[in-house]
Amino acid sequence: MDRISSRKNPKVQALARLMGPARARREAGRFVCEGLRLSLDAVRAGIPVEEVFLTDGFITRHPEAAAELIRAAGAAYAIDEPVAERLGDTRTPQGVFALCRMGEAFPPERLLAMDGPILGCECIQDPGNLGGMLRTAAALGFAGAILIGEGADPFSPKALRASMGAAFRLPLGRMDGIDGLFDRCAAGGIPTFAAIPSGGEPVDRLPMRRGVLLIGNEGNGLSERAITGARYRATLPMAGGMESLNATAAATILMWEMTREGREDR
Amino acid sequence: MDRISSRKNPKVQALARLMGPARARREAGRFVCEGLRLSLDAVRAGIPVEEVFLTDGFITRHPEAAAELIRAAGAAYAIDEPVAERLGDTRTPQGVFALCRMGEAFPPERLLAMDGPILGCECIQDPGNLGGMLRTAAALGFAGAILIGEGADPFSPKALRASMGAAFRLPLGRMDGIDGLFDRCAAGGIPTFAAIPSGGEPVDRLPMRRGVLLIGNEGNGLSERAITGARYRATLPMAGGMESLNATAAATILMWEMTREGREDR
Repeated sequence: MDRISSRKNPKVQALARLMGPARARREAGRFVCEGLRLSLDAVRAGIPVEEVFLTDGFITRHPEAAAELIRAAGAAYAIDEPVAERLGDTRTPQGVFALCRMGEAFPPERLLAMDGPILGCECIQDPGNLGGMLRTAAALGFAGAILIGEGADPFSPKALRASMGAAFRLPLGRMDGIDGLFDRCAAGGIPTFAAIPSGGEPVDRLPMRRGVLLIGNEGNGLSERAITGARYRATLPMAGGMESLNATAAATILMWEMTREGREDR
Repeated sequence: MDRISSRKNPKVQALARLMGPARARREAGRFVCEGLRLSLDAVRAGIPVEEVFLTDGFITRHPEAAAELIRAAGAAYAIDEPVAERLGDTRTPQGVFALCRMGEAFPPERLLAMDGPILGCECIQDPGNLGGMLRTAAALGFAGAILIGEGADPFSPKALRASMGAAFRLPLGRMDGIDGLFDRCAAGGIPTFAAIPSGGEPVDRLPMRRGVLLIGNEGNGLSERAITGARYRATLPMAGGMESLNATAAATILMWEMTREGREDR
C-alpha cells in the first residue's frame, strides 16, 4: 500500500476539493465519504469506491473494516495523521476517506413510476436539513426523493453525515424547476401535495398514501408556483401552535403521516 | 446613546464570553440574543433585557425594531461594525445583540403539575438538536421541558437560533439525574415514557396524552436507568425501516403522536 505523507500530494488535494463546494463534485462525478460508518455504508450499498485512504491508527483500531474497505476499493493508500487532519470535515477525524463514483441521478419518470410516496425538496439550503430529511424518508419507507431547483448538495460531507448514507440507498432524482414535475405527475395521475404551514387541507383527510410531498426552503417555504401548481395543499392540524414548526420538523411529521400504519385513505 | 468602537471594550468582552461555553452564562446568570427576531422575541416574552447593542446599519435598516429594543432595555449602546463582526456567531451578523437576564429554572414539581405533556431531554449533546426539539415542543403545545443530566445549553447562541425563542416561552426545568424524576412522577401518578428505537410498545397503544416523554442522547440513546425506570417504553411502529430515524426526527414524531388531534387514549 503506497503511503502519502504530504498534504500537497495531488490525490489529497483532489479529495479536499471534492469535500468543498458542490461544483467540484458535479464536474468530477465523484464524492468523498469520511468515517468508518459512511465508508462501509457506501461499499455495502454497491457504490463504486475508486480509492480509499486510511491512517495507521484507523487500521489498528478497526482492522476488519479496513480490510473490507481495502478489498472493495480500486486502490488503497496509507495516509499520515496530519493529512487526515487536513482533510477531515469533523472535529475528530476517524482517519478514513473513500473516494466514490457518483451514480447517475434517477430519471424522474422512473421515480414517479415507483410504488410508494416520493419526497420533493424544493431549494432546501442547509445540507444538514437535506441530509436529515433524506434519512427520515429512507427510514419511513419512501420510494425516493426528487431535488428541485438550486439547493444543498446531498453529497456534501455535512449532508452525507446527516443522511447516514440514505443518499446512497434512496433513489434520488433532480429537476431544474417545478413545472416539469407537475406536467409529468398530471400525465401519470400522480397526486402532488404542497406542504404549507397553515390554510391547507388537514393532512389526515388527504389521499396521501402515494404521490409527491413537496417541502420548501427553510426560510421562505415553497415557491408560489409549487403551491398553486400542486393538486393539494396539505397542512398539519396543530393543537398547540402559537409557534411554528421548522421545515425539517414539519417534513418529518408529514412523511410520518403519509406512511404511518393504520392510515386509511378516504 | 454611548458608542463602543473597540473590540477590547469590557462590555464587548463580557458579551463574547456569554456567547461562548455554557459555564460563563451559568455563572453570570445572563445570556445573549443575537439578531432582530430573537432579540424582539426576548423583549416580547418578558425576558429582562439589561443592555442592547446596535450598529448604525441595524438602526437604519430596522428603525422600529431598534426603537422597541432601546425602550425595553436598561441601557443601549451603539457599536461599530467591526465590533458586531467580532461578536457575531452567524456568518452575516445583523448588528444587534441583547444582553438578557436568565430566569430561574422552573422547579420540576411545578412543571410536572402542569396540564399537558412534558419533554424530558437526557444529555442531548448538539445545541441545534436541543433547540429544534424545544421549538417543536412549543409548537405542538407541550407544557414544558426538563433537561436531565449534562447536555447542551439551551441558551447558547446556536441553541437559541434553532429554538427560535422557544427557550423563552416554554417552561424549562433542570435535573441532575433521572432518578429524582421517577420518584416525583411515581408520587404524583404521572406516567413516564422512554423512547426506544425498537422493542417498546407501539406509541399509538400507550396512554400518552399526558406524562413525560424521555428522549436520549443522539449517539447512545437513553441511559439504562432511564429505560428501565420509566413506566412505559415507547416505540414508533414503522412501515419502512431498514434505516433508523435520528434522535430529533424520532422525538418530533413522538411529540406529534402525543398531541395530535383525534388521539384517543385507550
